[in-house]
Amino acid sequence: MTDVTQIVLCKRPAGDVTADCFRQESVELAAPGDGQVLIRSRFLSLDPYMRPRMTELRSYTPPFELDKPLTGGSVGEVVESKNPRFAKGDTVIGMLNWATHTLHDGKGLRKIDPALAPLSAHLGVLGMPSFTAWYGIRHICKPKAGETVFVSAATGAVGQVAGQLAKLAGAKAVGCASDDDKCRWAVREAGYDACFNHKTEHDAGAVLDKLCPQGIDADFENVGGKIFHAVFERLNNFGRVAFCGAISEYQDTAPMAGPPKMFTIVQRRLTIQGFIVSDHVALMGEFVSEVGGLVRDGKLRSRETVVDGLAQAPAAFMGLLKGENFGKLVVKVA
Amino acid sequence: MTDVTQIVLCKRPAGDVTADCFRQESVELAAPGDGQVLIRSRFLSLDPYMRPRMTELRSYTPPFELDKPLTGGSVGEVVESKNPRFAKGDTVIGMLNWATHTLHDGKGLRKIDPALAPLSAHLGVLGMPSFTAWYGIRHICKPKAGETVFVSAATGAVGQVAGQLAKLAGAKAVGCASDDDKCRWAVREAGYDACFNHKTEHDAGAVLDKLCPQGIDADFENVGGKIFHAVFERLNNFGRVAFCGAISEYQDTAPMAGPPKMFTIVQRRLTIQGFIVSDHVALMGEFVSEVGGLVRDGKLRSRETVVDGLAQAPAAFMGLLKGENFGKLVVKVA
Repeated sequence: MTDVTQIVLCKRPAGDVTADCFRQESVELAAPGDGQVLIRSRFLSLDPYMRPRMTELRSYTPPFELDKPLTGGSVGEVVESKNPRFAKGDTVIGMLNWATHTLHDGKGLRKIDPALAPLSAHLGVLGMPSFTAWYGIRHICKPKAGETVFVSAATGAVGQVAGQLAKLAGAKAVGCASDDDKCRWAVREAGYDACFNHKTEHDAGAVLDKLCPQGIDADFENVGGKIFHAVFERLNNFGRVAFCGAISEYQDTAPMAGPPKMFTIVQRRLTIQGFIVSDHVALMGEFVSEVGGLVRDGKLRSRETVVDGLAQAPAAFMGLLKGENFGKLVVKVA
Repeated sequence: MTDVTQIVLCKRPAGDVTADCFRQESVELAAPGDGQVLIRSRFLSLDPYMRPRMTELRSYTPPFELDKPLTGGSVGEVVESKNPRFAKGDTVIGMLNWATHTLHDGKGLRKIDPALAPLSAHLGVLGMPSFTAWYGIRHICKPKAGETVFVSAATGAVGQVAGQLAKLAGAKAVGCASDDDKCRWAVREAGYDACFNHKTEHDAGAVLDKLCPQGIDADFENVGGKIFHAVFERLNNFGRVAFCGAISEYQDTAPMAGPPKMFTIVQRRLTIQGFIVSDHVALMGEFVSEVGGLVRDGKLRSRETVVDGLAQAPAAFMGLLKGENFGKLVVKVA
């Protein structure tokens, strides 16, 4: 038996997620059965997509179950294994519980080399968020030299990579973020041509007119809502929208309307494409070779916020939904 | 000199097009200069896209000029030619004035064989509207056997072909139209599985739930607005929208909001693609060979409304914007 601390979803949020949606509890885990592995979590990734999973929606991932631990992309260490693919001491990545330990059947679990990069990087610049950015830029936005790419949540785990990949493709990258520090980092470190603070700049349309005088050729959309509407209005002929997320809508209790004048899609021959990176795992190798190389060569910067201790996960997640984190948000579990 | 009757745009509409936007006038045309052809119009095509051209919008075609004749896809006969590509008596298709005669520089003008099909068919089932349907179905909707395709304006010049191409691909085709006669024709003649009257069925969502119990895999969108919102909500994972037009928006003075919950695009990995068939003229040969063959073999039905006399064009066009025509609308000029 292993003593485990875990965080369960005890109430579905209506609107903003509140602390009473979570309950921390102590349980005992039995030893792994045949095919199972016991994993001690090292880092837990917190991502916006978890918010829709807290609600009973028809979505791409099933909703979290009530009174069961929430789950998330995590890096951990195998403590005990009855699965021939894993041995005690292996470092692994996969979906683990918001918990100190998870009993896992091995499905979707992958060994990683802990010497390759800091462990948390596998959840960020070498992991799912970065793969998401790469897929959206390479396969949907397809920026050409001289084009303008807009990235909402420009310094988020996904956006920071999307903006840099757009720049590497020779495009102009313009973004927005939720505070001045992030905007400065976006320009100075990530190489954005411009980044505006959408909390203080209330007229997104006017700012976009100034920062994107040639219009917008591709939009890497993480946020949705008002800023998206302003971007939509400024898309050029044959513009592309890689629709990756809509964090501004996740806590809405009444559904927000889409941008006015859908005929714009016809007039400008726009393509708006939603995607979820887990549909494209077949391209993971290509991503790793390209983006891994960029990281190794120092051509891709990344920024993360590490929160210490599992108990902080709920508060950190609530902050994430309000844009309080800077870059990739991970919880150091142990 | 040739005496010509023509219809000019004398006022830009605000909201619904009204009769006082048009003026019929008599002018004299000089004989063709070098490179020019004088064409006598036989049939003039009336199409919804002309409405946005009446307004000074940033659109894919420049707006019609005030006090100049409106133009439209037309079939005519060469009366006099100073262009080596055309001879007196040739039957030609191209953009001609809303007029009995047009002086043309030959650009975009094409000879057709008048023995091949009734002249008006070149403006419908063998022409631009059909090419539009073919492009949207083949290159965007890409229906697979067993899928459900929805077509708004199911019996319009474009929709009637889109629905039949979807059926020929083995999909289920469901549409809507603006009266019961059209709906009956859609099912009995064009082979739609179902078609509802959107003027009498006010709860599009409920009707769609009944007619498309498996959801909608592809939407050939001609109308926009409320029905589109209901379709959008019912799109399946990996659904495609071929956005061809948004006739419900063309006469709006205040822009209509897009569908609520744009995050649906991500959750269901939707692709919404606007297109204009003139961007794809390189595929014209492929279209002609495929759709021409279907027409020849009696596998593609079509329906048209022929209005007699140029003077009727304004009223017929105003009716088109309200769904009063049945199938392809053409004016028999002479």
